[in-house]
Amino acid sequence: MKLYDRSGFPNAGRIRVVLAAKGLDELVEFMPVDVIGAEHKSEAFLAKNPSGVIPVLELDDGTLLSECTAITEYLDNLDGQPTLTGTTARDKGVIHMMQRRAEAELIDAVGHYFHHATPGLGPTLQAHKSPDWAHRADWGRREGERALRGMRYFDQILSGRPFVAGESFSMADITVFMGLAFAEVAGLAAPADLTSLAKWRAKVADIPSVRSRSGQTLVADDLRRLGF
Amino acid sequence: MKLYDRSGFPNAGRIRVVLAAKGLDELVEFMPVDVIGAEHKSEAFLAKNPSGVIPVLELDDGTLLSECTAITEYLDNLDGQPTLTGTTARDKGVIHMMQRRAEAELIDAVGHYFHHATPGLGPTLQAHKSPDWAHRADWGRREGERALRGMRYFDQILSGRPFVAGESFSMADITVFMGLAFAEVAGLAAPADLTSLAKWRAKVADIPSVRSRSGQTLVADDLRRLGF
Repeated sequence: MKLYDRSGFPNAGRIRVVLAAKGLDELVEFMPVDVIGAEHKSEAFLAKNPSGVIPVLELDDGTLLSECTAITEYLDNLDGQPTLTGTTARDKGVIHMMQRRAEAELIDAVGHYFHHATPGLGPTLQAHKSPDWAHRADWGRREGERALRGMRYFDQILSGRPFVAGESFSMADITVFMGLAFAEVAGLAAPADLTSLAKWRAKVADIPSVRSRSGQTLVADDLRRLGF
Repeated sequence: MKLYDRSGFPNAGRIRVVLAAKGLDELVEFMPVDVIGAEHKSEAFLAKNPSGVIPVLELDDGTLLSECTAITEYLDNLDGQPTLTGTTARDKGVIHMMQRRAEAELIDAVGHYFHHATPGLGPTLQAHKSPDWAHRADWGRREGERALRGMRYFDQILSGRPFVAGESFSMADITVFMGLAFAEVAGLAAPADLTSLAKWRAKVADIPSVRSRSGQTLVADDLRRLGF
């Protein structure tokens, strides 16, 4: 299978941790997408994913999968032994709920802040944005506040359980972890009083599948090129 | 278990179809939420779901599940025989991808249009909205256009396969079906040239679990009360 993504980007990082956790790296051919050059908004890429975002997984039969949750469901169930998406009905429910919250209240909110309330990935991509820039900047700033509220929510959750969705590491932990890394790069570091979140983060950073990707979890190189 | 929802609302309808499809109605106690009176923004409800939306499923052990996809994963896997969320890795991946698209590009976009570019559910709820109403109205209108593009996308998908995620009826069909019903009520009826979508819609309306809920799929009674 082929993975269209860009090393170092937050949603790409989510799937790379999944690949490491499932031992699937060697089955995947990595196809780099020039996100800074807005390749993900090109006609060729939109034919693969009409939503115009990375990552996209292309299966050997030509099936195209986008959306991190969907790609994770696929990869986690490939060997019939899911470890990241739950095995019981209750665990599947809780993991999917926390995954959706980690997206809406953290990683997606950070993304909206980054792309709309900061220079984001620079001028090439800006041409693909909505023309009412000033309104979007207001919205982006509110999304930044939402992400900070999201961090506070996850801190509270993690004061009462070892992982985001309960007793075990799951895809929801990967999403919160990448959301925090992205937030830091975007200038929204987690407040220091969120100690449960900080402890959990140190613990997750040390999980082998996450540790193996730790050099890839920040968009540092590309951002340095943009002058951040 | 207890289901906190409101009969006739689009996301409530999604879970009610799932309950019918899985034959689980009798296990559920329905707890009506006064959505028009903004009960879902009250402190008591936010303690059940910090996102402040219905439906919420409370399990007998006290676990609270929100987010339709998460609730559906739970209900569909309760008997160990999933019929709406996929059984193979590939099907799970495709169904989750189409489910997410059906939310972002249709039912959620219609919701944003309805709540921000029309009077929505009326004045009580409005107090809970962002203060920059005019900007939000612009955004709401763009979300309406997004929903219309979404319909066109699903029409194209359904010109090549019998159901939204492939050969079988899945949770993604339920989401698109409810999204179209909601869109109609909000004044965004599907354009007449989307004939594959219309044929699929007539077919889905006739599936027993959907047909049993057809009187509940529109928010008609509440909206009439608001003078729509």
